[in-house]
Amino acid sequence: MLNRVRWAVAHLVSSGGAPPPRPKSPDLPDAPSPQTAAPPEEPRSPPATAGSGSAAPAKTVEARASFSRPTFLQLSPGGLRRADDHAGRAVQSPPDTGRRLPWSTGYAEVINAGKSRHNEDQACCEVVYVEGRRSVSGAPREPSQGQGLCFYYWGLFDGHAGGGAAEMAARLLHRHIREQLKDLSCWSSQKEVTHESLVVGAIENAFQFMDEQMARERRGHQVEGGCCALVVVYLLGKVYVANAGDSRAIIVRNGEIIPMSREFTPETERQRLQLLGFLKPELLGGEFTHLEFPRRIQPKELGQKMLYRDQNMTGWAYKKIELEDLRFPLVCGEGKKARVMATIGVTRGLGDHNLKVCSSTLPIKPFLSCFPEVRVYDLTQYEHCPDDVLVLGTDGLWDVTSDCEVAATVDRVLSAYEPNDPSRYTALAQALVLGARGIPRDRGWRLPNNKLGSGDDISVFVIPLGGPGSYS
Amino acid sequence: MLNRVRWAVAHLVSSGGAPPPRPKSPDLPDAPSPQTAAPPEEPRSPPATAGSGSAAPAKTVEARASFSRPTFLQLSPGGLRRADDHAGRAVQSPPDTGRRLPWSTGYAEVINAGKSRHNEDQACCEVVYVEGRRSVSGAPREPSQGQGLCFYYWGLFDGHAGGGAAEMAARLLHRHIREQLKDLSCWSSQKEVTHESLVVGAIENAFQFMDEQMARERRGHQVEGGCCALVVVYLLGKVYVANAGDSRAIIVRNGEIIPMSREFTPETERQRLQLLGFLKPELLGGEFTHLEFPRRIQPKELGQKMLYRDQNMTGWAYKKIELEDLRFPLVCGEGKKARVMATIGVTRGLGDHNLKVCSSTLPIKPFLSCFPEVRVYDLTQYEHCPDDVLVLGTDGLWDVTSDCEVAATVDRVLSAYEPNDPSRYTALAQALVLGARGIPRDRGWRLPNNKLGSGDDISVFVIPLGGPGSYS
Repeated sequence: MLNRVRWAVAHLVSSGGAPPPRPKSPDLPDAPSPQTAAPPEEPRSPPATAGSGSAAPAKTVEARASFSRPTFLQLSPGGLRRADDHAGRAVQSPPDTGRRLPWSTGYAEVINAGKSRHNEDQACCEVVYVEGRRSVSGAPREPSQGQGLCFYYWGLFDGHAGGGAAEMAARLLHRHIREQLKDLSCWSSQKEVTHESLVVGAIENAFQFMDEQMARERRGHQVEGGCCALVVVYLLGKVYVANAGDSRAIIVRNGEIIPMSREFTPETERQRLQLLGFLKPELLGGEFTHLEFPRRIQPKELGQKMLYRDQNMTGWAYKKIELEDLRFPLVCGEGKKARVMATIGVTRGLGDHNLKVCSSTLPIKPFLSCFPEVRVYDLTQYEHCPDDVLVLGTDGLWDVTSDCEVAATVDRVLSAYEPNDPSRYTALAQALVLGARGIPRDRGWRLPNNKLGSGDDISVFVIPLGGPGSYS
Repeated sequence: MLNRVRWAVAHLVSSGGAPPPRPKSPDLPDAPSPQTAAPPEEPRSPPATAGSGSAAPAKTVEARASFSRPTFLQLSPGGLRRADDHAGRAVQSPPDTGRRLPWSTGYAEVINAGKSRHNEDQACCEVVYVEGRRSVSGAPREPSQGQGLCFYYWGLFDGHAGGGAAEMAARLLHRHIREQLKDLSCWSSQKEVTHESLVVGAIENAFQFMDEQMARERRGHQVEGGCCALVVVYLLGKVYVANAGDSRAIIVRNGEIIPMSREFTPETERQRLQLLGFLKPELLGGEFTHLEFPRRIQPKELGQKMLYRDQNMTGWAYKKIELEDLRFPLVCGEGKKARVMATIGVTRGLGDHNLKVCSSTLPIKPFLSCFPEVRVYDLTQYEHCPDDVLVLGTDGLWDVTSDCEVAATVDRVLSAYEPNDPSRYTALAQALVLGARGIPRDRGWRLPNNKLGSGDDISVFVIPLGGPGSYS
């Protein structure tokens, strides 16, 4: 989230970046710990269940007092220090020894080049068991209704203005999804409501409940900042990719690129933001105008004609400048510099409940949506080979790497390994992170073409779709 | 718009369907009449300029007192009676003799099977000259700024609850576009504002001004009902397709189908409508809920769990039924039966300023948008052959004809004519209308597969993209 929140660095440095103790969520009182989330006896589950970023072993408590990394990295205190080193920017992956991630998923990450004190990305990879809820009418569940179900889960969380929201989401969002999916056991076919649309609805509502929990806990436990969330759920043959923010997911299948998400930024969501400002002008606090102009209006231009566009327009037209057009525009800037209320460059995600306009008390949260867009990919509709993968990356990857470059790296790296070598997906994730980070040269991190590499936190999951993973 | 507005037939029959005298628009005081809209001396303009539906010759005044058809059909009083005959449903096209439509455009239409007294579709095809406006700063225009510009224009307007709005739009919308395009002469390249985006903005604002004019004139001059609008503008090498409603445009190019519009209905716009109801609950008048349920809730279900979705969701989830969930849903029904406030089945268009919920004073207009979606097609990026066409049709065509069936008819009909025969596009339009209407059999209009043909008004433009038309 480089440059995405103006004061993020200053804020973090001044606060010391120390996260508060993390209490057990009052929303999920009976949630098993990540370690026990997988059914112990479930025959189809893979041998290993990687923990989320929260459940640190006791020996790393001291290091965790200042920051944390995903538990599945199994970092020693020394490893944790290396992962936190802005100068070296060592790429981190789960160790070759020990249990692999489900499906032999590959993962790699690297810290930013100094824009924030710690790596504000977080990740989670889990196998989650969903116990069926009692039926809707309150009657006890029939034995024939089964023993519940199991889903596979991957999450990338790109934090900004602090690491608290990303850490909390990595720790709890899959539990909210599990809670929502319990209702699935009540489902009986109804007009126009498919099983798939219930899973989509469960994920959508889980994002909302996660966000509401952050709102409730933000005072007592100081959930800092906000985060983008990119989440994958695999359930009953289908892959659900849910995105809220500017991370991105693509499938590379037989060399073909299938986009599985789109980014939510002030540019892509301009009309939604402007509509809200138009319908609820009190949210603009008399400081902003919902209209967009190609440049800032000068007071001397009052009464002249100027190009503008509003919530209904994709094109530009002329209007006569009035007094309130001199206010700062709700949406301004282009590309990575685009901002809502001159402050934040991403328009969906979790948290940010305390985010205010610079030098103002005006809250920005009303313009941010916690709802993801969910895309569904049916794994059963195509015979996948071991080289077909789903790649998830935070914007640190995509800022300097195109979809086509990722597909080329997929081809290059995977073809150098035996198809049944489970380490190939981690090697691929590492290659993608290294390719986006670059190497230190000429007082910066540079790519082979001498352009600047990404100075942002970079995190990548590579999920094999037809590989040696024994999922069904 | 068959079945799209509940009381359309009853209303029309009771009012006699007679449109009021049409005054000159107060908005466009200096607008030349359609006959003079084309530059008299413009060398590139085609020899003929077809008039819109408004400018009826004196001899048809008597017939026009009850209804009107596009002037370019050149209907005699007898022809007008045949065009108005629900029993015969004769297909109407411009005569082979006389001037052709610009670009040798093909056109055909047929009246409905009795759902409304008259054909509520209207059409317009024009060449419009845009005089440059004085520059924005007020300084006189430099001679080097040129003599203005010329655009080609096609419009289909599918009326409902009366023919007034469609007739007014056919008569005036292109003039509003011309007014907006006058500002183009002031354009100098600015950050992120392209010439194309100015044309898009001009069309978007023209729709809004047209709708506002209908609102102002609705009392004095009784602009009945509303209409969908599908409009094509050709300017400087680009085709702009603007759609507000459920008409549809596709390009058939070398057998390939390129969608040039999408339909705006309660189903496709559910989330926009629900968001508005959520942010402005007063628009629901305590009669409706913005939530959607798979079926109507019964009072005895209070407190039970039920599937729902709101403005943020594409999936379904469960909620506990509360008292206000018993209200009628803002959006309900599926497919062609979907309705906003149980009343109207299309969510964008012009007019409808008087539309109220059945047996209520609650206005529906706030939920309807007059803004089109504009898609741009660059004619210069591909070498078109005489068989490449842009097909515009009202929903009467598309309700019973798929894109692929249209493409097959394009191939079948055009291959039966010489490529340079200008009558082939009218023959194609007629074939499309006939194929959607069917033939009378078994007490109904039936297609060759014995399914019911469309009982709606059907109107089709076929615009050749690389044919003998001498446009540049």
